[in-house]
Amino acid sequence: MIIDLRSDTVTKPTPGMLDAMMSAEVGDDVYKEDPTVNALEERLANMFGKPKALFFPTGTMANQTALKLHTNPGDQVICDSNAHIYHYEGGGASFNSGISCKLLDGHRGMFTAEQVIEAINPPDFYHSPLTALVEVENTANRGGGSCWDFEELKRIRTICNDHSLGYHLDGARIWNALVAKPETARDYGQIFDTVSVCLSKGLGCPIGSVLIGDEDIMQNAMRVRKILGGGMRQVGYVAAAGLYALDHHLLRLKEDHQKAKDIEQMLSGLDSVKTVEPVETNIVIFELLDKKNDGKFINLLADKGIRLSSMGSGKLRIVTHMDYSDAMHDKFLTILKSM
Amino acid sequence: MIIDLRSDTVTKPTPGMLDAMMSAEVGDDVYKEDPTVNALEERLANMFGKPKALFFPTGTMANQTALKLHTNPGDQVICDSNAHIYHYEGGGASFNSGISCKLLDGHRGMFTAEQVIEAINPPDFYHSPLTALVEVENTANRGGGSCWDFEELKRIRTICNDHSLGYHLDGARIWNALVAKPETARDYGQIFDTVSVCLSKGLGCPIGSVLIGDEDIMQNAMRVRKILGGGMRQVGYVAAAGLYALDHHLLRLKEDHQKAKDIEQMLSGLDSVKTVEPVETNIVIFELLDKKNDGKFINLLADKGIRLSSMGSGKLRIVTHMDYSDAMHDKFLTILKSM
Amino acid sequence: MIIDLRSDTVTKPTPGMLDAMMSAEVGDDVYKEDPTVNALEERLANMFGKPKALFFPTGTMANQTALKLHTNPGDQVICDSNAHIYHYEGGGASFNSGISCKLLDGHRGMFTAEQVIEAINPPDFYHSPLTALVEVENTANRGGGSCWDFEELKRIRTICNDHSLGYHLDGARIWNALVAKPETARDYGQIFDTVSVCLSKGLGCPIGSVLIGDEDIMQNAMRVRKILGGGMRQVGYVAAAGLYALDHHLLRLKEDHQKAKDIEQMLSGLDSVKTVEPVETNIVIFELLDKKNDGKFINLLADKGIRLSSMGSGKLRIVTHMDYSDAMHDKFLTILKSM
Amino acid sequence: MIIDLRSDTVTKPTPGMLDAMMSAEVGDDVYKEDPTVNALEERLANMFGKPKALFFPTGTMANQTALKLHTNPGDQVICDSNAHIYHYEGGGASFNSGISCKLLDGHRGMFTAEQVIEAINPPDFYHSPLTALVEVENTANRGGGSCWDFEELKRIRTICNDHSLGYHLDGARIWNALVAKPETARDYGQIFDTVSVCLSKGLGCPIGSVLIGDEDIMQNAMRVRKILGGGMRQVGYVAAAGLYALDHHLLRLKEDHQKAKDIEQMLSGLDSVKTVEPVETNIVIFELLDKKNDGKFINLLADKGIRLSSMGSGKLRIVTHMDYSDAMHDKFLTILKSM
Repeated sequence: MIIDLRSDTVTKPTPGMLDAMMSAEVGDDVYKEDPTVNALEERLANMFGKPKALFFPTGTMANQTALKLHTNPGDQVICDSNAHIYHYEGGGASFNSGISCKLLDGHRGMFTAEQVIEAINPPDFYHSPLTALVEVENTANRGGGSCWDFEELKRIRTICNDHSLGYHLDGARIWNALVAKPETARDYGQIFDTVSVCLSKGLGCPIGSVLIGDEDIMQNAMRVRKILGGGMRQVGYVAAAGLYALDHHLLRLKEDHQKAKDIEQMLSGLDSVKTVEPVETNIVIFELLDKKNDGKFINLLADKGIRLSSMGSGKLRIVTHMDYSDAMHDKFLTILKSM
Repeated sequence: MIIDLRSDTVTKPTPGMLDAMMSAEVGDDVYKEDPTVNALEERLANMFGKPKALFFPTGTMANQTALKLHTNPGDQVICDSNAHIYHYEGGGASFNSGISCKLLDGHRGMFTAEQVIEAINPPDFYHSPLTALVEVENTANRGGGSCWDFEELKRIRTICNDHSLGYHLDGARIWNALVAKPETARDYGQIFDTVSVCLSKGLGCPIGSVLIGDEDIMQNAMRVRKILGGGMRQVGYVAAAGLYALDHHLLRLKEDHQKAKDIEQMLSGLDSVKTVEPVETNIVIFELLDKKNDGKFINLLADKGIRLSSMGSGKLRIVTHMDYSDAMHDKFLTILKSM
Repeated sequence: MIIDLRSDTVTKPTPGMLDAMMSAEVGDDVYKEDPTVNALEERLANMFGKPKALFFPTGTMANQTALKLHTNPGDQVICDSNAHIYHYEGGGASFNSGISCKLLDGHRGMFTAEQVIEAINPPDFYHSPLTALVEVENTANRGGGSCWDFEELKRIRTICNDHSLGYHLDGARIWNALVAKPETARDYGQIFDTVSVCLSKGLGCPIGSVLIGDEDIMQNAMRVRKILGGGMRQVGYVAAAGLYALDHHLLRLKEDHQKAKDIEQMLSGLDSVKTVEPVETNIVIFELLDKKNDGKFINLLADKGIRLSSMGSGKLRIVTHMDYSDAMHDKFLTILKSM
Repeated sequence: MIIDLRSDTVTKPTPGMLDAMMSAEVGDDVYKEDPTVNALEERLANMFGKPKALFFPTGTMANQTALKLHTNPGDQVICDSNAHIYHYEGGGASFNSGISCKLLDGHRGMFTAEQVIEAINPPDFYHSPLTALVEVENTANRGGGSCWDFEELKRIRTICNDHSLGYHLDGARIWNALVAKPETARDYGQIFDTVSVCLSKGLGCPIGSVLIGDEDIMQNAMRVRKILGGGMRQVGYVAAAGLYALDHHLLRLKEDHQKAKDIEQMLSGLDSVKTVEPVETNIVIFELLDKKNDGKFINLLADKGIRLSSMGSGKLRIVTHMDYSDAMHDKFLTILKSM
């Protein structure tokens, strides 16, 4: 039995989801004639209280499109120094949009409204890049699945208004925040201009992300998607998985969170572990006492069928998900206990 | 009954293909762990006699990645003035790669080796863009599904060698050329550095294209795909359709070609039609006698359930495909006859 | 005695101009504190009846900045197939702005309003690049120094209005058009959004171009100039040459034009010459009877101290200018006569 | 009497320099026929022991060209979080080259070899940008004119070799380091692939920077300069100032350094000043006790004819230079004393 805890992207569709996929009614989405894609986009737009939503093959493309829609080449986006758009999108912000990141030294992937104010370049000082956008990731992946304080997000909204900045939410794991925190999707929709959500992480779909946003800013979204090469044809088979997941897989994320907390507790008791980041959702980041031991630790677990990821500098990451069953959980905890 | 002849992209999977999709073994392709994707890539690489192949969500992304792999910003690609990469990829050549197109005034989307020689800018004359790549489209969409003379393609290969230029084949409809002409996929693989092939046109798959190429040039293909946002997860469901199509849908393209020829013959006899481009594969481009009548002509047919595309300037396009049945064909010919 | 007819860029300052340069009052232009630069910009703005003007180190940078100010990446600019921005700016349109050129098959570097209409892509057909700008070159370099018909330029203005397109004049040699034709600088300023003018061609300055335009579109001009690396310091020494030239070198362009006409006449009588483009200003483009003879012809003249340029395909170019004296002219005509 | 200490860019040519400029022999540098430019390029290439040097209108363009020559779009350059290329080149790194900066948290604008090692992304982990270049600024402007330890620079060279990274020196103020430290220009040339030097700061020229480098990497430098719009014509007038400055203004930088030290000492004694960065060359950065008082402090001095710059967050910058005379120095110190 392989227990894969590298990421929540490794999940495979359940029989029910597969059924939904294969019985989907499809059409040519390039002509906007795929009824299932249209239904998914409409459902998510409504969920977040926004007029527009557009399906994308990946979360990276949804985020990259959002960056492009909010900026012009040379502009700067304010984000956390741990942001996915800076670290894990292949340098796409500069490649696709010609923009740079102003990195804030946040806490667990999250920063404050005051930090944003200080990071805005004066618009008429043309030696510095023009600040155009604030980007937030919730939950914050490299922050250890941390959830933003909604009041801080609202304060940042006010600053964006004051300085005519766009405001984008990388909601790859917003579903986890929605079950862990009291705010609703509509609450997020109200303060952000654009929100990207991922179907293939916690929700368990094989493929797909959706960008949701206001009419004016989404106006060119199809054009940018086309240019990047994301305009697919009978993609309703994939969209159907998204609709199914919204019905069946949203609330069960609580189970992933509980398992992550169990793992946190177990890790905290291990001698070889220096610290465990406080667990709020489905991600556990921990640091080994001996920084250089991470390869060894990973191999030791790999021998027992457990896979996890290195974050560099002796930090390791575990992500719980739908395909991490109760039986696997018991086995993993037992293995951890014995280390 | 709607008879949709706008494009061969409108086809939907057959029950057999859907079965193959549903029973596909999948994995996380970002980690290269999806066995079905790997099998499809390997099969196409072998088919074209190349070491590497990579799956893409769209043909546009496969082409755009090829352009990027062959060029640096500021470079120029030589292509036909009717090329898909110039007209129908949203300006992606300049957006994604920062390159320009040197447009050749070809015949039915095809040009000569001599034209290529004349179009190469002297590498040390830095006022002009550096010529880096020759791009060919076979069959040529806006050329009316025309098939290149293979000897000409070989002559261009020699020129590319002499001037250190890359050589890319946009093979979105190479399948049609393969059944219409004696050359094999391996023949094409031997002269081109990279070949993009589309699964969702003649082959009838819902989604997907594949870029096939040499080891050195494909080395950065996954990185570019990631940056553009094309690195999907459990994409084996879609790849399975491709494997199925290669087994079951390749030879049947002859039927589409025959139907296109029937339509050509019928159109040639119509008073309202000025000219019909000679039909070689599954595309019929024809010009109305009265240039300004195209909207009217389209509407007239639309009233009878027939859909086709305008190419501008009084030119219309019909594309036959797998979902254009014999019954539809009979009906359409009857309607045409009566016009 | 070397007679250099390759380009009007080869001129050197007269003693009077050099005096003006070296006695210029200067300051740090990055802080906009160089009084001579400010005076030149104001003078040219007034001359063309526009609110804003900005000094640039080269005409290429002035044009490239204009392209950037008018477009977003992926957009398309309509221009003649012989345009300087397409052929001689190193591929900068795609490198700097990520845009492509829609090339019109004009007559001597000039096209018609009707051609523009046909070249505009429908804004909602996102498969094609978004048309954003029409660019005109007057006089047209590769058109043989040809002058546009002002009525046609006005018709194109109307089309730009109707389709919300920008309208840029590459006026590298607008000075020649101004002395050859009845229209004033103000007339051009009235119909174009932006105009680039060059000081180092016919006007005889060593360095410099200026971009002139409307308030809104010029708003980011300093920022773009900074990014491209064109924000110089005590550049008043160079600007002073421009002010001097506007006072002393404008009307004398008629002499260059007369000399070019003399050369045209002489060339027309030569057996080895097939055709001479009709001369309107200071450029003479002619074609040899034997296309492959251009290298030989150039060398033959080089042996006699005459330098001219090849345009490729057996076409040669001669440009008259301030440093091409009467004595040189007599000598050159005598040499030509004897060929 | 205005005493301008905002920057060393504000200097104006001395009569001797102006004489040298006025009597310069010039030619068309686009054809590489300007003898004075060629002489300056050759002299600087020799000085740094490199085969190639190229003149640029600005230091920003020299740096931007170097970044482009070393990288491909999507790549990442490692530099200090205070780097000029990140803060003061208008976002050009991403605009012109499509690259991002990996910012190191250095000390006074300088970082360690160990920090570089940790910042290199694994080349096969394509989710992260490909690390391609290390960039160093000496002296470091925002570091307070600090001078790098040459041994550290050599250690970083070794790391660049080990990881196939380019190594660029932004030497806008390398002249100051050369007089303050024992290393020679040739020493720097030996360890860096490319070096940009500025003529219009400490050396007192009105315009110009030069990029110096190895044959292979400089091969495309003229092409990139052309594309950015930096290929000027009779630019020898400006280059002559550079040659003059190398003969007459290099050693006198010691005077600027002494004056800066005097100012440091005076500021250190002021009650309103919290800290003064240790002065090594011609830049003095100091922090006010009351962070919010910087505007007031600047205005107070402005009333007495003294101009200096704000760096934000209560930090102020003073730069000494050739036009800051002994008399001005006495006056300024007297004014400071009285504050």
